[in-house]
Amino acid sequence: MEQAEAAAGPVRPTDRADGALRPAGRAAITGGFWAARRAVTSEVCVPQGLGRLESAGNLHNLRLAAGRTAGEYRGDLPFLDSDVYKWLEAAAWTEAEHGLTADLAGARDAVVALVRAAQRDDGYLNSWFQVAKDGERWTDLRWGHELYCAGHLIQAAVAHHRATGEEGLLAVAVRFADCIDSVFGTDKKIDGVCGHAEVETALVELYRETGEQRYLDLAAYFVDRRGHGLLNPEATRGTAAGPAYCQDHLPVREANAVAGHAVRQLYFLAGVTDLAVETGDASLRAAAERLWTEMAARKTHITGGLGAHHAEEDFGDPYELPNERAYCETCAAIASVQWNWRMALLTGEAKYSDLAERTLYNAVLPGVSLDGTRWFYANPLQVRDEHLDRHGDHGVSRKAWFRCACCPPNVMRLLASLPHYFVSGDADGIQLHQYATGSYEAVAGTVRVETGYPWSGGIAVTIERGGEWTLSLRVPGWCADVEAGVNGVAVDTVVPDGWLRIRRAWQPGDVVSLNLAMPIRLTAADPRVDAVRGCAAIERGPLVYCLEEGDQPQPGLDAFVLDPSAALTADHDPGLLDGVTVVRGLSRRRTAAHPAWWPYRSGAGPTPPTAPTPPTAPTDPLPFTAIPYYAWANRQDGAMRIWLPMA
Amino acid sequence: MEQAEAAAGPVRPTDRADGALRPAGRAAITGGFWAARRAVTSEVCVPQGLGRLESAGNLHNLRLAAGRTAGEYRGDLPFLDSDVYKWLEAAAWTEAEHGLTADLAGARDAVVALVRAAQRDDGYLNSWFQVAKDGERWTDLRWGHELYCAGHLIQAAVAHHRATGEEGLLAVAVRFADCIDSVFGTDKKIDGVCGHAEVETALVELYRETGEQRYLDLAAYFVDRRGHGLLNPEATRGTAAGPAYCQDHLPVREANAVAGHAVRQLYFLAGVTDLAVETGDASLRAAAERLWTEMAARKTHITGGLGAHHAEEDFGDPYELPNERAYCETCAAIASVQWNWRMALLTGEAKYSDLAERTLYNAVLPGVSLDGTRWFYANPLQVRDEHLDRHGDHGVSRKAWFRCACCPPNVMRLLASLPHYFVSGDADGIQLHQYATGSYEAVAGTVRVETGYPWSGGIAVTIERGGEWTLSLRVPGWCADVEAGVNGVAVDTVVPDGWLRIRRAWQPGDVVSLNLAMPIRLTAADPRVDAVRGCAAIERGPLVYCLEEGDQPQPGLDAFVLDPSAALTADHDPGLLDGVTVVRGLSRRRTAAHPAWWPYRSGAGPTPPTAPTPPTAPTDPLPFTAIPYYAWANRQDGAMRIWLPMA
Repeated sequence: MEQAEAAAGPVRPTDRADGALRPAGRAAITGGFWAARRAVTSEVCVPQGLGRLESAGNLHNLRLAAGRTAGEYRGDLPFLDSDVYKWLEAAAWTEAEHGLTADLAGARDAVVALVRAAQRDDGYLNSWFQVAKDGERWTDLRWGHELYCAGHLIQAAVAHHRATGEEGLLAVAVRFADCIDSVFGTDKKIDGVCGHAEVETALVELYRETGEQRYLDLAAYFVDRRGHGLLNPEATRGTAAGPAYCQDHLPVREANAVAGHAVRQLYFLAGVTDLAVETGDASLRAAAERLWTEMAARKTHITGGLGAHHAEEDFGDPYELPNERAYCETCAAIASVQWNWRMALLTGEAKYSDLAERTLYNAVLPGVSLDGTRWFYANPLQVRDEHLDRHGDHGVSRKAWFRCACCPPNVMRLLASLPHYFVSGDADGIQLHQYATGSYEAVAGTVRVETGYPWSGGIAVTIERGGEWTLSLRVPGWCADVEAGVNGVAVDTVVPDGWLRIRRAWQPGDVVSLNLAMPIRLTAADPRVDAVRGCAAIERGPLVYCLEEGDQPQPGLDAFVLDPSAALTADHDPGLLDGVTVVRGLSRRRTAAHPAWWPYRSGAGPTPPTAPTPPTAPTDPLPFTAIPYYAWANRQDGAMRIWLPMA
Repeated sequence: MEQAEAAAGPVRPTDRADGALRPAGRAAITGGFWAARRAVTSEVCVPQGLGRLESAGNLHNLRLAAGRTAGEYRGDLPFLDSDVYKWLEAAAWTEAEHGLTADLAGARDAVVALVRAAQRDDGYLNSWFQVAKDGERWTDLRWGHELYCAGHLIQAAVAHHRATGEEGLLAVAVRFADCIDSVFGTDKKIDGVCGHAEVETALVELYRETGEQRYLDLAAYFVDRRGHGLLNPEATRGTAAGPAYCQDHLPVREANAVAGHAVRQLYFLAGVTDLAVETGDASLRAAAERLWTEMAARKTHITGGLGAHHAEEDFGDPYELPNERAYCETCAAIASVQWNWRMALLTGEAKYSDLAERTLYNAVLPGVSLDGTRWFYANPLQVRDEHLDRHGDHGVSRKAWFRCACCPPNVMRLLASLPHYFVSGDADGIQLHQYATGSYEAVAGTVRVETGYPWSGGIAVTIERGGEWTLSLRVPGWCADVEAGVNGVAVDTVVPDGWLRIRRAWQPGDVVSLNLAMPIRLTAADPRVDAVRGCAAIERGPLVYCLEEGDQPQPGLDAFVLDPSAALTADHDPGLLDGVTVVRGLSRRRTAAHPAWWPYRSGAGPTPPTAPTPPTAPTDPLPFTAIPYYAWANRQDGAMRIWLPMA
């Protein structure tokens, strides 16, 4: 395999994966929107993250496991090692693209050495079970998170190896994987799976990195054995969650609906998809496609956010998509991007990158503040007037870190590896899934992209290395009006399947121009989404907009009424929120709709009863300003809403 | 005080309470709707309840405290004694009206003896702190529930004394109250309040029963001291609930909104209102009125149910009234009825009995199955198609009992004492707050009521003991068309304040006829209630209706569309669900509104963007059947909804 062909990112299908797309071998974002967001990641989040892991005790716990210090395990959670591994992965991708400062590289190397030192001789590695629960290894697969932590270790090690070429961390991961392989199997000491899926996708990637078939087989074992009640169904019966919480209620090939804890479900489906890529297993692919459609059609918020309940961080019933109580964990959005990318590679279908784009801008990015110092764990779609924020770490004000800090280093590792989710290639050409100014190299050729996306829909693709191949440009589902040209000559833009394909004998310097019209859109939901009946959301391009109370002429938002016939304007304000395009218009407000003490009103009777129309007394038109949802909660607390009532 | 004047029920304002109404001295329901429901209470629930308390360990724990048995404390909850006390209270009210079987009376007496035996010499009594947490008395006021349990003991003792004349249990309560009084106070050993309000209202009633001013003063102390952060605000800061969970965030006189755990808030406000009755404290009355209006106008479901969140069993933000995730704990509805009755007595205003009526039929009664054997803890307003019931004790299938079994004996004690919430009197006459066939005696006179309520609105009130006084008949807020007559002669029916007042020199045998028209009504909500925008609820008389999947010609309800112009008919079916009036009509269903994978649809652009209208393809009209909500979940599981989309 040539160097140009081997993706430097987190997903690298092997030659055995017939028909699957390959990520671009080299990908770099060099300017524009994502360059700015990623600069915050590399310059603020990643350096600061190490300090957070020190303060929160994650490194202390590994030092205990390594015998380098004395004391008590800190944090009272069994998966704290995983935050360290996610941070190591983020540091690796950051180093590959930007390099690390000498200080940070040294600190990172010390963490790698610490991880190596903490590993037991037989390859086992988990500070919780080595320190706080010594002797209880593999006894609590439902809650212990040992394989989950192993998965993150493996992903960090693969990233570290791909990014730096250094073998040390990979050797740790391989030893732990071999330890797991020696224990788990239908004919081995333990027949079981982990309560939190994650190791499956990691093992496939370890197989890809090392070529060891055993790791692929082990991933297949974990995929096949979930859903057979191995996760102690007796212990969970009658509890709130039940076996569906861990997706242990049905084998994946028999499941018709996503269920349970959203991050667990999505990490698992990433592993399922990886396995389908590598094995060509049609039943796994069919299951992944079926579950994706069910999730997208019935359980996805307009932001791409997933997870309707705080209580169990889980999917709700079909069309149960609340606004104020939406959970939409940042990690679930990240997992969705990861899974969608694998589905895009497996199938070549554009819809997966449609959902990935929506999720990236509107469900991942809201999870980190613009300055990179504060985070959201849950991402609600509404904050009501007089909201009493009682939800602590899962509430509506950004926090510097969390007791369960899975999300921040997860954002870091995704944004640090982001360009590797944007472009793919195959023998026939190059596919641009997402648009960001940068340079992308695949087997067929190399392209340079320049764009003002997501503020404007103009995209210029310059061919840097040519040949006869097809350039495929994704036309997002939100775009109803597309124009394209090659070297200034318009080309046909029929895009029945979401791909605009242009086949040429490309010459270096050829320029393809794509223009995706970005009118402001008002969007409604399927009426079965009870929470937003009679409402519209403002969208523009890939961005979902929201209103924040502080931008409006009057406090409060619950009385806001959107007039859908009023003109809306989009204005770019480079000085606001690191530069955003705002949407402005005129709206009304209800005044004193119900002065009485009872908020329900019956229509006149008797037969047929008339439809009740609660009296409203809208004000004169008032101006309003909407901002991109990803940028909310960066100035002050207050009411916010995405879905706007139209009456 | 004459015997006829002394209410035999749970609330008995003293002579000191200037201007407050008094509950009828004697009240008995002798037939009709509530007689049937109460027969189930006395014949099934109360006898069966004792067995449940035995099985669940509540009696075992008291035996441990009494030194009558050995073993471990069972149940792992600190408030299990309170279920015993609520059951004793229910048994007392049942005995007073129906008598108990010899077996049950004997068993009840044994429980009373057990409670006496468990009491410590200094009057303290709490099996959790005597057995499981010996030596930790009064050290955990936030979670320990010691004063809460004391409150239920006191209420049971007062009921037992009023119903039977027997002094033994009252003596236990007095000793415990004296113990509490010796410990709690600004100048005593402990300056504190209980995490779960309840003792306040109980102490006022103990004052009423014994005449001891100390108990009223102690109640005033507990009311005044809540809201000053005595409940360990340091320990709760940063947790999900915070001090508002226990209403410890603000002194009640400064609060403008109900907040926190709904049952805690409502029990507390019952105590506040009792205190306002007895002391004439205008600032307490103003606080109670202000909080009631806030709650009714912004935080009450159409059923009267209270509590928007499962997570903390608490009130949500204003107008945050979800359907499927409504908590509406049965205990909160009971507490609301109790508080509303006290507000009605304090103020004489009809609106409190309006809300009590709604709550009784539509939020309390759904909590118990028609056969009296199974219970709801939470009372959601919707069960979606394909609902995965993961919420155990708080889910959507009725349970025989609960780990935390506060609700069942609470329903028992309310229904066993129900007639005492229906009629009041004062020097000027008699006020009928609720309508049920029965006999009611106040100072001014005695009346007999006959009615087919809630199925029909005809009410006949026969004067049994006359005199010159005012008969006040509540005309419910839902009734837009009322007729009335005396001995067949129509009378004027202007009811500006909810009371139809008829003043006469009444003769025994005079008959007042009242007819409250009961057309089927369609009811909408204030548009700020996002959850039900564009929906109507079916109501008739005091009843809220719902659709259950099993009654409809096709499975599922999420695609149901109500045509508000279709005729609706009401038919009484005596064979269905112990006899209910059903509502029938024609509706439509959406078919395949969104065949694609994305459930959101944008309107056409660009400027102004048009309002998006998701395509729907309603079916031909289909018949539907609605039943009273209180009777749901008595036949099979499945989808259910109260609020019906009109498009």
